[in-house]
Amino acid sequence: MTCMVCELTVIFSVSAGMGTRLLHRTIRKNYFLRHPLPKPTQKQCMLHRTFPKPISNLSCEALVYRRHGAFSDVLHLEEVPLFYNGREDIYIRMLAAPVNPADINMLHGNYGITPCFPAIGGNEGVGEVIKVGCNVNSVKPGDWVIPTDSGFGTWTTHAVCQAHQVTSIPNNISLISAATVSVNPCTAYRMLMDFVTLNPGDTVIQNGANSTVGQAVIQICSSMGINTINVIRDRPNVNALIEKLRSLGATYVITEETLQKQEMADIFKVVERPKLALNCVGGRSAGDLFTHLMDGSTMVTYGGMSRKPTPVPAKAVIFRNIKLYGFWMTQWKKDNLHDVAKIKGMLSDLIEMVRKGHLLEPACTQIPFKEYETAFHDSLNPCGSKNILIME
Amino acid sequence: MTCMVCELTVIFSVSAGMGTRLLHRTIRKNYFLRHPLPKPTQKQCMLHRTFPKPISNLSCEALVYRRHGAFSDVLHLEEVPLFYNGREDIYIRMLAAPVNPADINMLHGNYGITPCFPAIGGNEGVGEVIKVGCNVNSVKPGDWVIPTDSGFGTWTTHAVCQAHQVTSIPNNISLISAATVSVNPCTAYRMLMDFVTLNPGDTVIQNGANSTVGQAVIQICSSMGINTINVIRDRPNVNALIEKLRSLGATYVITEETLQKQEMADIFKVVERPKLALNCVGGRSAGDLFTHLMDGSTMVTYGGMSRKPTPVPAKAVIFRNIKLYGFWMTQWKKDNLHDVAKIKGMLSDLIEMVRKGHLLEPACTQIPFKEYETAFHDSLNPCGSKNILIME
Repeated sequence: MTCMVCELTVIFSVSAGMGTRLLHRTIRKNYFLRHPLPKPTQKQCMLHRTFPKPISNLSCEALVYRRHGAFSDVLHLEEVPLFYNGREDIYIRMLAAPVNPADINMLHGNYGITPCFPAIGGNEGVGEVIKVGCNVNSVKPGDWVIPTDSGFGTWTTHAVCQAHQVTSIPNNISLISAATVSVNPCTAYRMLMDFVTLNPGDTVIQNGANSTVGQAVIQICSSMGINTINVIRDRPNVNALIEKLRSLGATYVITEETLQKQEMADIFKVVERPKLALNCVGGRSAGDLFTHLMDGSTMVTYGGMSRKPTPVPAKAVIFRNIKLYGFWMTQWKKDNLHDVAKIKGMLSDLIEMVRKGHLLEPACTQIPFKEYETAFHDSLNPCGSKNILIME
Repeated sequence: MTCMVCELTVIFSVSAGMGTRLLHRTIRKNYFLRHPLPKPTQKQCMLHRTFPKPISNLSCEALVYRRHGAFSDVLHLEEVPLFYNGREDIYIRMLAAPVNPADINMLHGNYGITPCFPAIGGNEGVGEVIKVGCNVNSVKPGDWVIPTDSGFGTWTTHAVCQAHQVTSIPNNISLISAATVSVNPCTAYRMLMDFVTLNPGDTVIQNGANSTVGQAVIQICSSMGINTINVIRDRPNVNALIEKLRSLGATYVITEETLQKQEMADIFKVVERPKLALNCVGGRSAGDLFTHLMDGSTMVTYGGMSRKPTPVPAKAVIFRNIKLYGFWMTQWKKDNLHDVAKIKGMLSDLIEMVRKGHLLEPACTQIPFKEYETAFHDSLNPCGSKNILIME
C-alpha cells in the first residue's frame, strides 16, 4: 500500500503492541517512530499514525515540515489523511497546542530528537477524545488527553493514535493549563523531586527564573515550603518582573550581578544555602552559582540559553562535592513510558496544584490555529509571551 | 599541664576513644585534630598525638610549620616531644614519606583541609611499629603501618598514635611502594571502582595521564583488561613519555591537540567510546573530552592543574546525560574511616597488584630526611620526579 503521509510504497502487516515495534525495527526509515530505540539517546523519530485497512477514512489539517529550517520556509498547513481502524486506536480532536522553544529547535534540527520527514510539528497540547476503538478502555469519548511522549505532532486539528500514546487528564482545569502542563511544569516537578530530597525550609537557587519552567519551580517550591532564590537578567522594568515572581511565591529575586555582591551573605543569614541549583542559562550566570551552593549540593542543567558552557571550578566538585547532572523531560518520558503510575502520579500532583490555584497557567497569547504564522513570528521575539494555537 | 607542641597551657582529663573526641570538641583550638567533624567538608585539623601522664617520654625530629607559606619560610626541623602511655597507643619509627603536591598545597593553606598550628607536615608515608600499648592488638612490633587518614604528619622520624590511626600493610613490597600506596594508587582505584561499572573491553579516558594517579590508572586498567586513552601535554621528547606510558599498559597515548583531530574517530573504530573520564587538568583539556565520551558517561574531576574551570556544554549534560562528580581521597578516607574492611580490601587489592608487578613503584628521588630542603626545592620543578624523604 502507499503511505499517504510518507508518500512511499510500503508493505507490512501490523497489529497493535508488539507488531508496531516490529514494524519500526524492520522498515524504520519509512515511518515516523515514537518508540524508544535500543540506545535511548539515539535520535528518534515520531510514529506515523497510519494503519492498514482503515475502517473509516478521516483527515486533519496539520502543520507539516519536510526538512529542517526556519518555520516560514519549511512549515506548511496541509491536509493529512488519518486512518482509524476502530479497534486499538483513538480518534482525537486537538483543542490547543503551545509553540515551545523546543518545538522551534526541533524544526531547526537543533534538538536532541529529530523527526523522520515528513513530520507534523508540536510536542505538547491537549485534545478531546472523539471515538475509541472497541479494544480501548483507558480513555473514553469526551476525555481530555495529552501526549504521553514527545514527538506526538500536536499542531494538528485531529489525530489518531494508540491508547499508550496519550494520558487522560481531568477536564476541569483551564484549557491553557491542560495544554501546557506536560513539558514545563513536569520539568520543574521532576527536577525538584529526582535529584535531592527537599524538605520545608530548604533552599533552591535557579537562574533564568522568569522562564516558564522557572515560574513553575517558584510555585511548586512555594507550595512545599521551600525557599527559592531566583536569578534574572537585569532589564528595563526589572522591578515589575521581580514583583511578578514574588507574587508567585519567590522568596528572593535577584539579578545576575547581585550574585557577586555582599547582599548574598545577607540572604544566607536568613535562609539555608541551596542544596539544589537549577540552571537553564550556562556561562557565567551558572558559574557564579557555585560560590553560593551548600557543600554536597547538586546542580541540574536543563537549558543553555547563553549558548556558553558552564565553567565548573575544580574545587567545587573536589573539595565541596558538588555534583552536576542534566535533565531532559523528553528523555525522562522515554525512560518512564511504561510506568503509567509514575506519569499519572506526577500529572495528578500538578493538576491538584492547578486546581488549588498554586500553579497558575502561564501568561500566553492564544492564536487561532489557522493564524499559525502570527504565532511563529511572535515566537521569534525573545521577550514575547508564549503562544498557544487554539484549534477550537 | 603545658602542651609541648602547642606551647599552650591546657587542662584536661582524657581517656582513649570517646574521651579523645570529647576533648577535641571542647578545646579544639589548642589541638591538632584528626577526627571527622560533624560536617565532613568543614576544614579539619590534625590530632595532636599527645597524652597526659606519659609512661615514658620520647621525642622525634619533625618538620613543623606554625603558619602557611612557602616551605623555605615556614617549615623547620624541630625536636618534638612524644608521649607514649603504654596502653592504647603505638610508637612508630617512620621509614619513608613522600612530598606530594597536596602536602605543598596544605603548607600554602591552599587545600581542602588545614592543620591547627603548630603542625607537622606530610600526609603519606610508611613506618615500622616499635612498641604497642598493652591494649593494642591490631598491630605488633615489626609491622609496617601507613596512616589511615590524611593529616597524620608523616614528615617525622617517629610518631605516637592510636591504633585506628594506622593500617598495617605487608612489608614484603618495596619501601617506596609502601610509602606511596595510600594516596595516588588509592585515588586511581576508587575512581575506577566507585562511579561506573567497568568491564573488560570498556574504555577510560584521562588527561594529565603522566601524573602519578594517571600512571596508576593505566596500570590498574591494564590489569583489568580496560582500555585507556591517555591525554598528555605536548612537550620536548613527547615520544619518550608516550613510550613510557605504553610500557605501563596504556592503550592509546595522545596529546591534547589530538583530541580535536580526525585521529579520534580512528581510535573509536577500534575501542568503545569511554564511559568514564578522569580529569585532573580542567580548562579546555577537560572540555575537549566531552565530544568523545559515550552518552550516559561520567566525568570525575580530581585535580585542576590548569587552574581553569572545566567548560561543561549544556548539550553534553542534557541530551547526552553526562554526569560530573569530584573525587577527593581525603574526603573518602573521612567518610570510610570506620569501614576497616573496605580500607583493607582496597589496600590488599593494590598490594597484590604491586606484588605481581602490575603496579610499579613511582619514579622518584630518595632524599635523606635531614636533607629535606633539597626535596622541597626539587618539588618546585613541575617536570621533576616525586621526592621521597627517607628516615632510615
